[in-house]
Amino acid sequence: MTPSRWIPLIGWLHGYRRDVLARDLVAAVIVTLMLVPQALAYALLAGLPPEVGLYASMLPLVLYALFGTSATLAVGPVAVASLMTASALSGIAAPGSAEYVGAALVLAALSGLVLVGMGLLRLGFLANFLSHPVISGFVTASGILIAASQLRHVLGVEASGHNLLEMGAALFAGLDDINIITLAIGLGVWGFLLVCRRHLKGGLRRLGLSATVADLVAKAAPVSAVIVTTLLAWGLGLGERGVALVGEVPSGLPSLALPSLDPTLWSSLLPAAVLISLVGFVESVSVAQTLAAKQRQRIDPNQELIALGVANLGAGTSGGSPVSGGFSRSVVNFEAGAATPLAGAFTALGIAVATLTLTTPLAFLPKATLAATIIVAVGTLIDLPAIKRTWAYSWADGVAMLATLMLTLVHGVESGILVGVVLSLGLHLYRTSRPHSAVVGRVPGSEHFRNVRRHTVETDDRLAILRVDESLYFANARYLEDTVMELAARQPGLAHIVLACQAVNVVDASALESLEAINGRLKDAGVFLHLAEVKGPVMDRLKHTEFCRELTGHVFLSTYDAWRALHDERAAETSPVACGGAGLAGGAPSPSPSPDSGRCPITGNAPVRECFRVHRGDSP
Amino acid sequence: MTPSRWIPLIGWLHGYRRDVLARDLVAAVIVTLMLVPQALAYALLAGLPPEVGLYASMLPLVLYALFGTSATLAVGPVAVASLMTASALSGIAAPGSAEYVGAALVLAALSGLVLVGMGLLRLGFLANFLSHPVISGFVTASGILIAASQLRHVLGVEASGHNLLEMGAALFAGLDDINIITLAIGLGVWGFLLVCRRHLKGGLRRLGLSATVADLVAKAAPVSAVIVTTLLAWGLGLGERGVALVGEVPSGLPSLALPSLDPTLWSSLLPAAVLISLVGFVESVSVAQTLAAKQRQRIDPNQELIALGVANLGAGTSGGSPVSGGFSRSVVNFEAGAATPLAGAFTALGIAVATLTLTTPLAFLPKATLAATIIVAVGTLIDLPAIKRTWAYSWADGVAMLATLMLTLVHGVESGILVGVVLSLGLHLYRTSRPHSAVVGRVPGSEHFRNVRRHTVETDDRLAILRVDESLYFANARYLEDTVMELAARQPGLAHIVLACQAVNVVDASALESLEAINGRLKDAGVFLHLAEVKGPVMDRLKHTEFCRELTGHVFLSTYDAWRALHDERAAETSPVACGGAGLAGGAPSPSPSPDSGRCPITGNAPVRECFRVHRGDSP
Repeated sequence: MTPSRWIPLIGWLHGYRRDVLARDLVAAVIVTLMLVPQALAYALLAGLPPEVGLYASMLPLVLYALFGTSATLAVGPVAVASLMTASALSGIAAPGSAEYVGAALVLAALSGLVLVGMGLLRLGFLANFLSHPVISGFVTASGILIAASQLRHVLGVEASGHNLLEMGAALFAGLDDINIITLAIGLGVWGFLLVCRRHLKGGLRRLGLSATVADLVAKAAPVSAVIVTTLLAWGLGLGERGVALVGEVPSGLPSLALPSLDPTLWSSLLPAAVLISLVGFVESVSVAQTLAAKQRQRIDPNQELIALGVANLGAGTSGGSPVSGGFSRSVVNFEAGAATPLAGAFTALGIAVATLTLTTPLAFLPKATLAATIIVAVGTLIDLPAIKRTWAYSWADGVAMLATLMLTLVHGVESGILVGVVLSLGLHLYRTSRPHSAVVGRVPGSEHFRNVRRHTVETDDRLAILRVDESLYFANARYLEDTVMELAARQPGLAHIVLACQAVNVVDASALESLEAINGRLKDAGVFLHLAEVKGPVMDRLKHTEFCRELTGHVFLSTYDAWRALHDERAAETSPVACGGAGLAGGAPSPSPSPDSGRCPITGNAPVRECFRVHRGDSP
Repeated sequence: MTPSRWIPLIGWLHGYRRDVLARDLVAAVIVTLMLVPQALAYALLAGLPPEVGLYASMLPLVLYALFGTSATLAVGPVAVASLMTASALSGIAAPGSAEYVGAALVLAALSGLVLVGMGLLRLGFLANFLSHPVISGFVTASGILIAASQLRHVLGVEASGHNLLEMGAALFAGLDDINIITLAIGLGVWGFLLVCRRHLKGGLRRLGLSATVADLVAKAAPVSAVIVTTLLAWGLGLGERGVALVGEVPSGLPSLALPSLDPTLWSSLLPAAVLISLVGFVESVSVAQTLAAKQRQRIDPNQELIALGVANLGAGTSGGSPVSGGFSRSVVNFEAGAATPLAGAFTALGIAVATLTLTTPLAFLPKATLAATIIVAVGTLIDLPAIKRTWAYSWADGVAMLATLMLTLVHGVESGILVGVVLSLGLHLYRTSRPHSAVVGRVPGSEHFRNVRRHTVETDDRLAILRVDESLYFANARYLEDTVMELAARQPGLAHIVLACQAVNVVDASALESLEAINGRLKDAGVFLHLAEVKGPVMDRLKHTEFCRELTGHVFLSTYDAWRALHDERAAETSPVACGGAGLAGGAPSPSPSPDSGRCPITGNAPVRECFRVHRGDSP
């Protein structure tokens, strides 16, 4: 428990050299240029005043630099979290009001507590509930919703709504009030950014710039759009002509203060905070891992939970909205050469300088510019071909993805993601609830056993060997009962059933009870139950159970051992392992079943049914 | 789609012979004697007038005989469903009121629709959500709650409550009002039934009766308690002395009528109806399967859904409360010799006769007698040692069981079972989210590979073979990413990673994306990714994916093939299968990787990193 265990910065700071400092500083300057308009834009998206986005880009970045394990993850306000913030706060207060801002701080702090709590309890695995198809469907739907929500700023009309239908209706109703200048600015910036994205990089390279520099310049295109439209709005007095501007941004750094501690507010925001935390964590870790792998580095997911949590606590106590790791900013940070998390701290410094110096000009920035920036940025989130690709690979995953996408679009972000999670769990259970299993027979002359339906193999009417191709747990325990009992009912002459367990990695308590039930029912029907190829860890658990004591048959090391003991004449050579057989003999180790399985394996002469009656003893 | 597919009765009725009729009639008489007091008692438990229990024991039994596949399952009112009914209706209306009774009919009809719907859609697998530990914890808690709820009738005080704490407090507050005669009757019947249960069977056998007859007579003890206490109450006029009696029971058969169609009522009862349906189905199927197996017969779970559903629809339209298969009655039915579902129809006839003739005397039956009957009956549901047993086998299952038990006791049946389901899903995901995996090496001189930590095996610094012991799906996809990337980060000289997939039964879309991410990240790090021992069905799916085209390495039939190609000099002899390798060569089949893995497997001379750069081609 050294300090550097909790604050990774301590571990690497003493080796920090001047050349690394230079790289971090260059990256910080470039990310700052990118982050200023994004911070304003995502505040707009979340329905918050612009300074909230700037505040969320200072203290949280410094705190992540202290606690984070990724050298390149750029933390701050991001598109999806801003959409989720807007959705969570919509029922609480009117957008832009002091109450609304206060609730945003609570949401950030609460999300921070959730993340830190998950990190300390090492609950990072909870993020696994969000399967890839659900995340992908959700992110695509979020991208569409975000783009749709920004259209009103491009058109310059008043319109709002929390799903695609409401937004569409509101936009349509507002079409009469379109402000032509706003529309011109919005479409102009939109077109400019699209052209820059497609052609600027190639153009710059043809002018002789290196690929990396050309790429970074192209990524800075939004900054030039911000500068030009701000100058236009200021010079032409567009604010008086009905163009919505960002307006007054308070100059100066945020002050530290605890957010509201109203318990009603906290409990009503908790579900949203959990979702924002999980989605933010999943996205951040996946970006951080991708970038770390390029340098053969590792990030520690549980430490990332703590780092993101502390960053959000910082946001909530310094006037900021929820933050997480941004995809495009992290990539820019990486490509600009960021070498340590200090690059993020330097970015925070850059934002602080901007907040102290640029607030007067930023007041003239048209909202339509920011909206166009957002629309172009979220274009990368929308991945419709993924639906077709996923569907082609697995219909179940396709259903989960499509359901998440559609529900998020028409019903909102929270129900979309929750239904997606429930659906993917249900479909997973459905798939594993009917696991593949096969009756196998012996490949003549060998020790191998193959599916009787696919191969010409040796079988025995009194002996059925069932290979189970899945771990046994509650979702498929009853299906196993069905399969085995059907086998017993179909083959009247059957005396032995062997379960070949080479693919069984786990047997949970439900499956154990099913095995007990199978053993008991087969006993009533005069059939022995045996196991074969049980894995070590599974056997360790089974050894001390009632099932093992009651098992009518034996546990064989290999399927071939079972075949030799139950089918061949060489039975006496085989010695079964671990447990079993005692269910008939009352606890004492018993000899191997006699080759003539119509007879009792204990006494060797009574028929099996009689044998059961004799040896059933005091069982109820 | 023959009629006998849907109505199994048609299939077997034409072979119905006189000796089978005799067996069914005997069983019906015995079950009727048992069912009359139980029907009244469970109506009392559900807060319903006594006739509702009798009505639920007529039409539903006839309908089950038509549609059911179990020869011995005795359908009717049962303890747990009655408790759940009381809990579901408690918020709707005052117990005993006409509204309350109407809601009970709606609950039965709704539960019938849910069951029939599940049967037609073949959704029986949904019952798998209820794991054994959850069911077991829930049933034990229900038993305790039921016994506690009946104490007030034994004591003769007014007290109610929906969890153990409320019940305890109410009972304590009512202690001053204890009616001594009621208490004497209650304790007397309780003691009598306990003595009968423990000693009557043995005593009768010593008197020369056969085991089966002795058992059946012992099971009929409640009937004698009912007769004696009814006579006492009538003869001594106990009704005037403050002893609560059953009171007037309307004579005659129920009339058919649709239940209320109020949509608000239906939607508020739907969650409870789903839970009652699932719990009833799971319990019924498990009893029916156990009894069917004793005669090597099969029951069809999806047909059982339909049969139980139609029975509940019958209950809801003929004045009855929800029904399901009862454990103890089914066992009695089986031991009394019931041979076909017609035994159940004859039981319905018996109940009809009782309803037409016995309602006048039943009015004098003390409620304390019924309460004592219930308390003794639910004793068999309570299985506290199961907690210890389950905990010893698996802490995760123990946690799920204990949480279900405790929450059901202190917070009510619905939250108990829901939390149990969520917990067992979560714990299952947790367990499978960190699957066992092992770096393996070659057992010298053989084709076998074993865990490097447990065995002395041959390894190669440039080659790591990772065996994954679990199917790959969303819950463990990210863990796989972590494990592989950690492996790559730990071994700087690594050039090849082989995933040995013999235990992988499924790769879902999330795991596929993780494999793509792993492949991409390893590519960035200059490491080839290979697969080995991929199962047929898994390979069929992978074959057409982007992953397979992008895979930098190859798919080998066996781990040994991979070892030979990547470690030995005999590389040229091995030809990889199905796909892979093309991610470097742009689609064309490529030769096996060169033995010197520091060099490009395509050109054979450039170092690996250069090779990636050259062959990465047009990928973004």
